[in-house]
Formats: sequence, C-alpha cells, structure tokens
Amino acid sequence: MAEDSSALRITCTAPVNIAVIKYWGKRNSDLILPINSSLSVTLHQDQLKSTTTVTASRCFKEDRIWINGKEENIENPRLQTCLREVRRLARKRRNSGDENSSTLTLNYKVHIYSVNNFPTAAGLASSAAGYACLVYALAKLFGLEGELSEIARQGSGSACRSMYGGFVQWSMGVKEDGSDSIAHQIEPETHWPELRVLILVVNAEQKSVSSSSGMQTSVKTSPLLKYRAKIVPQQMAKMIEAIKQRDFETFGQLTMKDSNQFHATCLDTFPPIFYLNEISKCIINLVHSYNSYFGQTLVAYTFDAGPNAVIYTLEQHVDEFVEVVKHYFPPEENGDQFLKGLPVKSVALPEPLKSSIHMDPIKGGVRYIINTQVGPGPQLIEDINQHLVGEDGLAKE
Amino acid sequence: MAEDSSALRITCTAPVNIAVIKYWGKRNSDLILPINSSLSVTLHQDQLKSTTTVTASRCFKEDRIWINGKEENIENPRLQTCLREVRRLARKRRNSGDENSSTLTLNYKVHIYSVNNFPTAAGLASSAAGYACLVYALAKLFGLEGELSEIARQGSGSACRSMYGGFVQWSMGVKEDGSDSIAHQIEPETHWPELRVLILVVNAEQKSVSSSSGMQTSVKTSPLLKYRAKIVPQQMAKMIEAIKQRDFETFGQLTMKDSNQFHATCLDTFPPIFYLNEISKCIINLVHSYNSYFGQTLVAYTFDAGPNAVIYTLEQHVDEFVEVVKHYFPPEENGDQFLKGLPVKSVALPEPLKSSIHMDPIKGGVRYIINTQVGPGPQLIEDINQHLVGEDGLAKE
Repeated sequence: MAEDSSALRITCTAPVNIAVIKYWGKRNSDLILPINSSLSVTLHQDQLKSTTTVTASRCFKEDRIWINGKEENIENPRLQTCLREVRRLARKRRNSGDENSSTLTLNYKVHIYSVNNFPTAAGLASSAAGYACLVYALAKLFGLEGELSEIARQGSGSACRSMYGGFVQWSMGVKEDGSDSIAHQIEPETHWPELRVLILVVNAEQKSVSSSSGMQTSVKTSPLLKYRAKIVPQQMAKMIEAIKQRDFETFGQLTMKDSNQFHATCLDTFPPIFYLNEISKCIINLVHSYNSYFGQTLVAYTFDAGPNAVIYTLEQHVDEFVEVVKHYFPPEENGDQFLKGLPVKSVALPEPLKSSIHMDPIKGGVRYIINTQVGPGPQLIEDINQHLVGEDGLAKE
Repeated sequence: MAEDSSALRITCTAPVNIAVIKYWGKRNSDLILPINSSLSVTLHQDQLKSTTTVTASRCFKEDRIWINGKEENIENPRLQTCLREVRRLARKRRNSGDENSSTLTLNYKVHIYSVNNFPTAAGLASSAAGYACLVYALAKLFGLEGELSEIARQGSGSACRSMYGGFVQWSMGVKEDGSDSIAHQIEPETHWPELRVLILVVNAEQKSVSSSSGMQTSVKTSPLLKYRAKIVPQQMAKMIEAIKQRDFETFGQLTMKDSNQFHATCLDTFPPIFYLNEISKCIINLVHSYNSYFGQTLVAYTFDAGPNAVIYTLEQHVDEFVEVVKHYFPPEENGDQFLKGLPVKSVALPEPLKSSIHMDPIKGGVRYIINTQVGPGPQLIEDINQHLVGEDGLAKE
C-alpha cells in the first residue's frame, strides 16, 4: 500500500472514547499497566477526532512531530516508545515474511502532523485519540496489520481503547511484560443505534492536575483506590451484560456510580484532587432530579479528569434533556454556538418537570453541548485532500 | 442535691466535639450503633456550648421541651428514648439502694429548656452538644451518676463523645444491645495545652442533606464505606498514639486524610452527597500550600457534614494562620465580626509565603473565625442566675 512515492503520506483519524468503567492508577508506569480493567464507548468521529498525517522520506534527518500546528519535542519518552514499538513490530513481521508488510524502509525518519478538532487537555481524552491516531497511522505507513492496542497503550493508557469502535474493554492483564493488557471490542458501533452522547463543556481551560500525575498520587496515597480495584471486576461483568442487553437503566446506573467512585478516590488522594466543580455538581443534581421525575434512569452522567459532563441517553430523550440543560444553564448572549454535532429539536418543557427541579438557572454554566453517538475505530483517509501535509512535505495552511 | 424545691431547677452545659476519625454510618439505626469507632476533640465551652435547664414538678401534666426559645415536639423518638432511659436507669439505681440517688420522684414530668450559642444545623454538631446536655441535666435532676454516654448515644450518635472532655473515643462495640458502644476519655483536656481549634464558618445556612439521612444512604449504597469501616481500626491506633505523644505532624496528617476519606464515601453514595463547597476546597488548598511552604504539617483541616472548616493547629501558629485566612478571604465590610473566641494578634505575612500561595483572594468567603481550644465535658452550673428558667418555672427573657 505504501509502496509508491505518493503513499509516503498516510493520513488517519481516530476517535475519542469515554469510559463508563474508569481507568485510574497504574501498576507499572513504564509499560502503562493499569490496576483495573476499564470499559469505554467510542464516540463518533463526525463530531470529535484526532487527525494525523505521517510522512516518511529518505531525506528526513530525524523524526519530528507537530501537534495542532506547533512542533513538540519528539524525545517525549512515550512518543519514542510508540515509534520504536511500531518499527520493531513491522520489522518482526517483515522478517517472518508476512506478505502484507510494506517495503518502505523502516530506517526512514518520519514527520508527524497531528490535529484535534476539540480543545486539548480539557478532560476530553485528547491524548487517547492522539496516540491511537499516531499508532494507527504509523502502522499503516509501515504496512503493519493486526493488534496494535498494546502499542497505543504505551503512548497513553486509554489510547488502547480508541483503537476500536463501539463498546471496548481494556483488560488489565496479568503478565509482567503487558502483552495481555490490551483492548478488544465487546460490541460494534452498530449494536445500540439509539444510544446518544451529549458532551456538556463546562470549562475548556487547562485542567490543574494532569490525569497522569493525579493517578500516580492516588495509587500512592488512596486506600480506597486499592479497594476499588478489587470491586471493579463484578461491576465490569454487570456493565458488559447491560450493554449486551441494551439495558439503559442498568447501564446508566453503573456508569454514574463508577464515575462517582472514581472521583471519590480522587478525594481520598492526599493531598486531595478535585476535578468536579460547582457546575459539575449542579449537572449531577439535575440528572438525578430529571430521572427521579420520570421514575427511571433516562440520562446518566460521567466525568473524566475534569469538570465537563458526558451524558449518555437514548435518542428519544435528547431533545427534552438538551432543553432542560438550556433552561438551567442559559447560554451567554455572546458565548459560543450552544449546540454542536447532531441536530437537536427545540421542545417545550412540561411545567411539572420544571417545578420538580429545585435549582436556580446559572447563566453560562455550560458553554456548549456536543451531541454525538457511538462510532467506529480509527480510519485510513483515502482522500488526498485531507492530508495535513502537501506533496511538498510541508504542513498545509 | 435535688431534694429541696429550689433544686427542681437544674442547669448544665455541654460541649461541641469535632471528630478527627469520623463517625459515618449505623449498623443499627434504632440503637444508633455505628459501623466504625470514632475519635474526637472536645471543644471549650467558653466559645461553644449547649445550655439546658430542666425543671420537674408534680404540677406538670406532661414532658415538654423548648429549643432556642421555640417549643419542639417532645414525641420525637430520640428525645423519648433519652427521657425513658434516664428514668429507667435512675429507678434501677434507686431500687438497688444507691445512696446518691435523688429522692425526687421519677414520676414527675419535666420541662426542658435548651439553647445553643452557635447556629443550629450548620454542621457544627449542635445535636451532639444538645443531647449530651439534655442527658447530663436529666441525670443530675434524678441524682444519677456514672456512665451516661450509652444514653446520650441514643439521642444522637456523636453526643456520646460530648459526655467527656479532652480527647474522646467512641468504641463501636460488638454487643447487639449496644451496651458496649460507649465513649471514654483517651486523654484529658489538660494533656495537650498548646492545641488550638479554629472554626472557619463558611456558610451558616441550613445544610441540604442531614447527616442522619446522609449516612443512611451511604450505608445502603457506598461500597467504599464498607471498606473504610475495615481500615478505621489501624488509623485509630495511629491517631491515639499521635495524641498521646502530642505528635502534631502525625495527628494533622491523619485528621486531614480521615476527613477526605469521609467526604469520599459521601461522593461514593448514590445519589452522591456533597458537603464541601468551593470555599471548602479553597481552604483545603490553602492548608496544603501553607504546610508545604514550611515543609511540615503546621495546620490541619477537617470537615463534618457541611462546608465549614475546622482547623487544628498549635498556639504558636494561630496568629499567622489566621492572618493568612484573612488575607485570602478578606472579610466583607458590613459582615459579621470576623474574629471570635480566644484573642488573636495581627501579624505581618512574609512575602515569600504569600507568593508561594497561588490563590486569588475571595472576599467574604469565610464569614468569621472562632478561635478555641480543647475543653472539659458537661458542667453543672451552680450559679442560679444562669438558669434558663425563673423560679416561676417560666423561661427568662
């Protein structure tokens, strides 16, 4: 595939994933081996994605990387690990005579251009999509097929889950070399077509404690985190069953409880880590009020290492719940466009619903909402217009 | 003592206590038996106290109670339990010929007048001081001596710890009838004379989730709470040792970690309970910044079921830390008197200290500070001018 000179440019996209059973804490920081298995939903790339173009040339003197238009340090150990591991695996396959292997020389240096279409480090798992995209693109460049999540994991733990679409489990594994700490798909993106994902962007500023250093402190200091690791397996089994049965009630309850428990272990960390802010708490209360009005779980929240809420719901509840969010967090007049992604219809809220929610509206509390759905894994982009780099090897625009 | 007619009025005071190993969760809600032992510091009554006057008369037709000037329902089951248990114990002692027993007839009805000199239900454990005071005063009225914490516990769990001064442990006990779930003094109030307690009142409004219903939901829904109960014994042993050694470094660290863990179990409750607000979090960050500037634990926070912070520190650090609080939470011009309780001297803050704390001042974030210290248990008030009720049996003022 990458044999003629035009194929020296490879462009791929990769998705964001949002865990419903969270990953928090490494048992091995070098190999990025987690203390518990985790499970996530892959979001659709129509709304959120990383795009990476890799180019290789005998003229390149060194590997280089540009992220969102700015050159970054290629010496970053995790980047180095991904580059080394993809090349090593490609070499191994080639030596074993795998006919899929590209003839592109593995000694060529690469230039990597990567962009996200969403704010980096806003708690939206940009590193997961970014590393998944990098590993997938490098693998395509070097003609490497098959299991790649083990390499993506070494870039950023949760990146391994972005290597697949649909519903994805990252098994913690037991081996010391991490070779069984890989992701696999539980169900494909077509499994639960009604499932919708609303991202409530509360605050797109840089977060204060990075998840990487946060989880390290948690592992060192939180007694509750050790216990959580022990009870995840039974929650995981229930979660997989709920997904297979498309049982939103159970799926939603487990999702919310797991999110709360993850943030509880952050609070049990010393010094404590707070990712939820007052708006996050109001969203939590709003979700519980809404569900309790209907006497069932129609919407479920989850929060990663930041204040933004991710809401899981079913298609038929999107319009009304978005209206509820708009009512209690009225957009600022000169703020961002409030609704992004899949279309949402404006509906009237029943008065009894409004009067059952005891909350004063907070203007501008939610900056915008992205309406999206479950999506596929990384994609190879055939359209040459979408390369981030021109034929001259220079970044476009 | 209560034999002549003037002695039909008994007035007592009882202290607030602030736990450093928290009580959260009952294994038996009727008897108020906890799922873990707890440990507290009794605060001095010069600053915070409940005062109760009990009167008894053959003319009274029924037991009645007034709290902070307002008559409350005497049928409250917990009040009834305390009244019944004190009378029962007094009857038992009298039948066994205990010569200390009062000859006051146990059939007389009582009128109870109780006031707190601090905001009720602001997370300042008013029910603990209130029930301790009630049980102590009733016992004095009926000439009952000895262990009373078992009865106070049945009024409000943590009230049992307010039955003693100094450093007090409430042992969870193992018996089904709760007879071994009692409080005892670890060290008297004179043990650690340098210890100081600063109460940072953040918000004296009624709290949203009462601790009683909150802990019930936690017991039902929080997996982490069950685990916490298992690890409390080892923390308790360390805490007792730190108190005995007057080791503030260890005492402070254990206190902060226990507070965080308690709030973590609230967050792990479903739906989650939040007692800490943004100001609470800023105080937590301020304490960690202050300690980290000095490279040791000079101040330690703890939070009960509300946003107010209680700060433990040693006498020599009070002036400076109060200045820090004043600097980062400047009082509102027309707010409450900012400093209450023991005197605090104004000092200059070193510039390097200020520049090490990365926080913008929040005007009015802390409403006022009460500076207090460790104090004794409940007191019988001999001064008849302090009765809340006149000789006519009517409430004064």
